[in-house]
Amino acid sequence: MPEPTEVTMSATLAADEALARRRLAGEQVLSMASGEIGLPVLPALRAKLAAAAGLNTYGPVAGSAALRTAAADYWRRRGLSADPGLVVCGPGSKPLLFALLLAVGGDVALPMPSWVSYAAQAGLLGVRPIPVETLPGQGGVPDPDRLREAVTAARAAGRDPRSVVVTLPDNPTGTIARPGTVRRLCEAARELDLVVISDEIYCDLVFDDAQPAVSPAVFAPERTVVTTGLTKNLAVGGWRTGVARLPDSDIGRALHTRLVGVASQIWSSPAAPVQEAAAWAFTEPPEVVEHIRASRRLHEAVARAMAARFAAVGALLTPIRATCYLYPDFEPLREHLEAAHRITSGAELAQHLVEAYGLGLLPASAFGEPGRSLRLRVATSRLYGDTDEQRTAALAATDPVALPWIRASLDRVEEVLADLVASRAPRPEAALHA
Amino acid sequence: MPEPTEVTMSATLAADEALARRRLAGEQVLSMASGEIGLPVLPALRAKLAAAAGLNTYGPVAGSAALRTAAADYWRRRGLSADPGLVVCGPGSKPLLFALLLAVGGDVALPMPSWVSYAAQAGLLGVRPIPVETLPGQGGVPDPDRLREAVTAARAAGRDPRSVVVTLPDNPTGTIARPGTVRRLCEAARELDLVVISDEIYCDLVFDDAQPAVSPAVFAPERTVVTTGLTKNLAVGGWRTGVARLPDSDIGRALHTRLVGVASQIWSSPAAPVQEAAAWAFTEPPEVVEHIRASRRLHEAVARAMAARFAAVGALLTPIRATCYLYPDFEPLREHLEAAHRITSGAELAQHLVEAYGLGLLPASAFGEPGRSLRLRVATSRLYGDTDEQRTAALAATDPVALPWIRASLDRVEEVLADLVASRAPRPEAALHA
Repeated sequence: MPEPTEVTMSATLAADEALARRRLAGEQVLSMASGEIGLPVLPALRAKLAAAAGLNTYGPVAGSAALRTAAADYWRRRGLSADPGLVVCGPGSKPLLFALLLAVGGDVALPMPSWVSYAAQAGLLGVRPIPVETLPGQGGVPDPDRLREAVTAARAAGRDPRSVVVTLPDNPTGTIARPGTVRRLCEAARELDLVVISDEIYCDLVFDDAQPAVSPAVFAPERTVVTTGLTKNLAVGGWRTGVARLPDSDIGRALHTRLVGVASQIWSSPAAPVQEAAAWAFTEPPEVVEHIRASRRLHEAVARAMAARFAAVGALLTPIRATCYLYPDFEPLREHLEAAHRITSGAELAQHLVEAYGLGLLPASAFGEPGRSLRLRVATSRLYGDTDEQRTAALAATDPVALPWIRASLDRVEEVLADLVASRAPRPEAALHA
Repeated sequence: MPEPTEVTMSATLAADEALARRRLAGEQVLSMASGEIGLPVLPALRAKLAAAAGLNTYGPVAGSAALRTAAADYWRRRGLSADPGLVVCGPGSKPLLFALLLAVGGDVALPMPSWVSYAAQAGLLGVRPIPVETLPGQGGVPDPDRLREAVTAARAAGRDPRSVVVTLPDNPTGTIARPGTVRRLCEAARELDLVVISDEIYCDLVFDDAQPAVSPAVFAPERTVVTTGLTKNLAVGGWRTGVARLPDSDIGRALHTRLVGVASQIWSSPAAPVQEAAAWAFTEPPEVVEHIRASRRLHEAVARAMAARFAAVGALLTPIRATCYLYPDFEPLREHLEAAHRITSGAELAQHLVEAYGLGLLPASAFGEPGRSLRLRVATSRLYGDTDEQRTAALAATDPVALPWIRASLDRVEEVLADLVASRAPRPEAALHA
């Protein structure tokens, strides 16, 4: 057997667990490392799951007909034709992405930066991913020209790239690649004969309705697999729901057979009660639509307010257009950080912030960027409250950043950043202990 | 990337889906292909899941502390020490087994015959398994002497076996390897430095309390991983619950780190509401214990009655001691089957039974045996009724085989087998159409 090249713990989940341990130990921590959505389950959705608790059969490997049909209709409402027979459901979009990498085979090109798990999943399969830089302000989609160069070079070196992953909208940058860029990416993928795996888990969390993310499935319908789920829209990460839409083409049908085979051998089927509730959610009844709209407004308000704090101390930020993430770059503060805190890498910066201040964030290196980068990914989705009452109030608020508990988190970040950039000597006792 | 050597659909799940299609098309079918347990969810367990529907966070990758503690206590009550910190929960024991193969790395030795998914999972990872015959009447545990030979030969040929899988009690044979055999297997594993992966999902479905399956964790505590789940005990396959107990040793701790890493990258965490319900079940309150006891009695009664039908027409059967499976061998009928039905393989026999009679069963080849074998695996766990009322009555019955709906299935099998072995010409119209 080929030795798995490496097994690493998911950076987001590891950071979450480390923060939970600090909190248990009595420390004050601010969790901005993982993108878990800190909101309660929509009561009607919770009731659907409760009512489905008696469902105990596996059902079809690809998911129930009800869930596949609801997911297909969901995509149709967004302008993408979809055949329920080519929809595959899984226990999260993460396992679907793993199974897709396995089913497609070969090497994979990834945008740089990109979500922590793409490269790690490839690593489990013994694949060294081919990182391709994105265009400025357009995270999630590899620069099409660089993709051509990288894939051509990889093939010349004997490697076998067969797919490219894109994230639309993007995690970690909170940006959205322009439709023209997506179109050029698709042209490149077609020329290079790559399957496009389009992770669109944030597609309903675009702040401006008039400027949605455009899926590569529009431009390369024959080769684009789209994945999404309810984790981000409806804050049910812990339920594990994901769906994949395979292309209605020879490529798509062959891949469907392999994907369902992989699913049958790894997870059998998604949890039946969860499927039942998810099928309801994907039909998008008005209360679901309104809940997602409210959560999108909340993400936008808090993420923008947070971005302003980072910008105020001199970090560079690309305007965010979606998700609950920002990706500030401390490069303009490099000299100060080294002089005052002996910080020369994003990992050291993130470590300092958690150890000295209990601020949990992830360095750009977790997203495939060079260690020297001073970018951090900041997730604001855990700042909406500590109780269901607070979180429900945050969802309903017209001005959520004025709520005392959200304001307190923003003030704390402001205070920490002010301390970080203050021109004074390092505080060894804080850096060592805290 | 190493090309996955093959992607096959799970034989049991594929057979289930094919039977469901036949039923939808109006055919009368008898589902004895997959071991899905056709019983309703224990009402108290269903209520636990319903009450947990609001849980939406990922929680720890390895599973909640409550579930890990409950699982550890479950093992302690069975004489195996267990540390909750070395328990890893997953969405089914199947994904845990896949993740274990990935985490251990190298090649894997498997008993022959063995459950359909071990070899298929290895195939997904590019591993050709090393099949090792079991001792007569002791399925699930490779013959220790043959294991030594096979592993030594594989190493001499440049392969890298690092683990051996055992199934206690066994699927597909319904037998249990003797403690002395398990001990010798453990000695061989220690000499060969193999991790023992012990799939004990049927350990509570042993018919005779006085003769339980003995885990290899007793004899090789430093290197045995035990997996189990609630799928078979409590008929919640569709919920996807599994737990793994890793050894409290250097081997175990290193493997734990890798296993949790793999889990974090493939599935993040098991579904949170399901974990909550599973944690309650693993504490084994009296109603759970009684429910499992009743289902075990039911499995025994129906499986033994079914075995008698197969034995009556001359198939060979090893006495079954656990599970809901029998594994009759039609070898004594080979000449007849070839002359009357042109059947020369288990696959042809299974195909004839489903096409001519709507009887769904699996051939031995699905369990890694040679195609020529005329063994079939017969699962009786779907014969308990078509409604929750019938199934609940079956659980409560002192003589379940006297219930009309169970009796009808047994009678139907008797009739089919009588027709199969009747000395007459093949019925081409039935074989072609049906």
